[in-house]
Amino acid sequence: MNKYNFGIVGLGVMGRNLLLNMADNGFAVAGLDLDPEKAESLQAEAQDGQDIKATTHAEEFIGLLQQPRTIMLLVPAGKPVDAAIASLVPFLDKGDIIVDGGNTYFPDTDRRFNELSEKGIHFFGMGISGGESGARRGPSLMPGGNREAYERLRPVFEAVAAKVNGEPCVEFLGNGSAGNYVKMVHNGIEYGIMQLIAETYDLMKKVYRMDNAAIQLAFEQWNKEELSSFLVEITAQILKKKEGETYLVDLISDWAKSKGTGKWTSQNAMDLQVPVPVIDAAVNMRDMSKYKPERTEAAKILPWNTGVIAAGKEKNIGHLKQALFFAVLTTYAQGLAQLTVASETYGYDLDLEVVTKIWRGGCIIRAAVLEDFRAAYAKNPQLRNILLDKDIAQKLVACQESIRAVIKDAIDQGIPVSGLMNALAYFDAYRSENLPTNIIQAQRDYFGAHTYERIDQAGVFHTQWD
Amino acid sequence: MNKYNFGIVGLGVMGRNLLLNMADNGFAVAGLDLDPEKAESLQAEAQDGQDIKATTHAEEFIGLLQQPRTIMLLVPAGKPVDAAIASLVPFLDKGDIIVDGGNTYFPDTDRRFNELSEKGIHFFGMGISGGESGARRGPSLMPGGNREAYERLRPVFEAVAAKVNGEPCVEFLGNGSAGNYVKMVHNGIEYGIMQLIAETYDLMKKVYRMDNAAIQLAFEQWNKEELSSFLVEITAQILKKKEGETYLVDLISDWAKSKGTGKWTSQNAMDLQVPVPVIDAAVNMRDMSKYKPERTEAAKILPWNTGVIAAGKEKNIGHLKQALFFAVLTTYAQGLAQLTVASETYGYDLDLEVVTKIWRGGCIIRAAVLEDFRAAYAKNPQLRNILLDKDIAQKLVACQESIRAVIKDAIDQGIPVSGLMNALAYFDAYRSENLPTNIIQAQRDYFGAHTYERIDQAGVFHTQWD
Repeated sequence: MNKYNFGIVGLGVMGRNLLLNMADNGFAVAGLDLDPEKAESLQAEAQDGQDIKATTHAEEFIGLLQQPRTIMLLVPAGKPVDAAIASLVPFLDKGDIIVDGGNTYFPDTDRRFNELSEKGIHFFGMGISGGESGARRGPSLMPGGNREAYERLRPVFEAVAAKVNGEPCVEFLGNGSAGNYVKMVHNGIEYGIMQLIAETYDLMKKVYRMDNAAIQLAFEQWNKEELSSFLVEITAQILKKKEGETYLVDLISDWAKSKGTGKWTSQNAMDLQVPVPVIDAAVNMRDMSKYKPERTEAAKILPWNTGVIAAGKEKNIGHLKQALFFAVLTTYAQGLAQLTVASETYGYDLDLEVVTKIWRGGCIIRAAVLEDFRAAYAKNPQLRNILLDKDIAQKLVACQESIRAVIKDAIDQGIPVSGLMNALAYFDAYRSENLPTNIIQAQRDYFGAHTYERIDQAGVFHTQWD
Repeated sequence: MNKYNFGIVGLGVMGRNLLLNMADNGFAVAGLDLDPEKAESLQAEAQDGQDIKATTHAEEFIGLLQQPRTIMLLVPAGKPVDAAIASLVPFLDKGDIIVDGGNTYFPDTDRRFNELSEKGIHFFGMGISGGESGARRGPSLMPGGNREAYERLRPVFEAVAAKVNGEPCVEFLGNGSAGNYVKMVHNGIEYGIMQLIAETYDLMKKVYRMDNAAIQLAFEQWNKEELSSFLVEITAQILKKKEGETYLVDLISDWAKSKGTGKWTSQNAMDLQVPVPVIDAAVNMRDMSKYKPERTEAAKILPWNTGVIAAGKEKNIGHLKQALFFAVLTTYAQGLAQLTVASETYGYDLDLEVVTKIWRGGCIIRAAVLEDFRAAYAKNPQLRNILLDKDIAQKLVACQESIRAVIKDAIDQGIPVSGLMNALAYFDAYRSENLPTNIIQAQRDYFGAHTYERIDQAGVFHTQWD
């Protein structure tokens, strides 16, 4: 008894796959699930040399674990996490560790962290990215909580995480809910890049009149170049899939669902006053996708006679790759800027070199370009925005003519490209020493006596305008 | 004693001005403020024929009021409202009415509505727009709460509200927090239009190279045409103001502040899955305006060599007015669509003909075009989006070439126009029967087994993509 190194609560797909991943790496792992079928099927699947024990009883489960205990929850975010904690706590001792591996909204983690701290139990919120196969073969892990207690988790997490050049895609990220926060922004960036890829696909189809085979080849080729990334790679895979003679993608409904992490990212960015407009656009376009009946009606009464593509515009297809690359860089910039401000606001003490390092592998937004971001933060840990790094800036400047050309084509053809547009508008606003928001301050002072500041003298001013 | 028709708590600028407005209209009004100076100065200001009584004692104040009592709070949103309610309730009787006239976040109103209902007291949340001078001379009032109890408030509110063609800009809007919600979205639209005006001003200055005098004349002229509106009018006024030889607007800092109502609108729209991208852009650009040191640095390393404006583009200045009109229509469409969904979600039972009717006067977003929206809702009370009204659609279609031309000029010149861009992207997405979000559903199914729906058969599907 009590010989198991690690306990996992919740033996659904994610929990089961992570547990098997740990067992592959030589750890003895106990699993708990109230569903006997899940417990039994896991037990039956244990292979020679794997030290696995599954049970349906919390007290038995606790008794199996080495002390001090390390337990990870893989149950749905929200009340199930509170229920799981409540069922375990009576059997736990001071110094034990609970890790929540779900997509938990970060304020919930702070609350649980504080409640369990009072009982002497260490609580971690850990983002896990990579989906089912990532959990099984090597995810990106984003743990936050207590730095010292993390040392006891480190061996098992480093063993199971994805590796890039031998470096594991896991590292202690920061205090309290830092892990959940970083995962939330990871997902926000993921929303942004997915929207940008969808727009690029749309432009290829509707503006540059490419067929699916040609589009597929383009994404496949791009994945070998500076756009090399998981999301471009799977887009190329998706565009290969056929049912008989029909491309499967042409049969899929355009109502895009979501689980809320992108929305949380946008909403929280507004609380922090950090603009993340590409992520906002991605959230908006998923929402827009559900208004199918209205869009069908609108299509009839809001025509735009684009005709065929204007002569000479075909050549702009060469700009598409640069346009997407530009917009993707800008999306990472927005998410990373949000992390910078969040770290200060919530006291996470994040190291963005570490964040960009562990995002290089295992996770959904892994991409070759993460190596450049990591290098930028290594050079300058105080970097406020990656657009201010000279190497990144150079890449953007080199692509800006392309994104301008592509968006103009989309405008001419009446194709919505809100992701690309917001990427460019962000870039042009960020590089504007003077914005026209002086007019807004004057208006606010006019109708609400909200006062304004001046550029020629300090203080706060009010004018009787009329 | 107890002869006063109406009581006002909080004699700051708004409370004082509303009270004087009521007294002008023949009502006897009692005021309460804990600050003796405020109470005394109001009392001193009472003119012949005005029946005003100010006090610093809650119990005395209550004793002055006719029963059942009607009391309005004009104290800062948040805890001061709770404190004011707590100080009054011990002296109130069943059937009394409390109206909160602040910019209260709507869930707070629902909480207070329920708490006071249990005591038999009617609670109203009422948005007030028009600023200081509106409160004094005729605001737009947006009350929500209980429809029957509203009848007792109607005479005084209809007397003090702004009038348009003899119709008062106040009407009962809906249940519970409906009034605060409508005011929140009013402010979101206000943020959007202010951002659009700022961008138009920026384009006149930096792209079409107009001087302040020419810009001023343009806004003044536009205010006489289809763009006729309070915000265009005050922009023209603002651009007249000089200090010696210098236009005051050129001396105002471009850091635009905000009080949160625009942010609430955007955040709540995301909860409701209603895209309001122009409002999001406005919130983002106010936030962007505070990053002045970063923008100054970025301006140096992210150059765009625009040179002078491309030959022939000067003629596009003719498109500017249409571009702004198009974008403004789109912004109202987004806010009104949000109200439609909010009414269903929160059970407000809003009538958008009424909302657009009372927005025609007194409030910050009053504009000639509100009459068109009102007509659209009168024709079709079930209208899901004003873009689906044939008359509005025609106006938009007539302007779309202009906004496309103007945005392309901004792109060429490197000027950020995220409001205009998001207006056009919204329009082009809304009139797209097919969006490329099928790709996003395929990606989600690929990495997360989130499943997808098909266009050729019912059900939910999952594919093994690799």
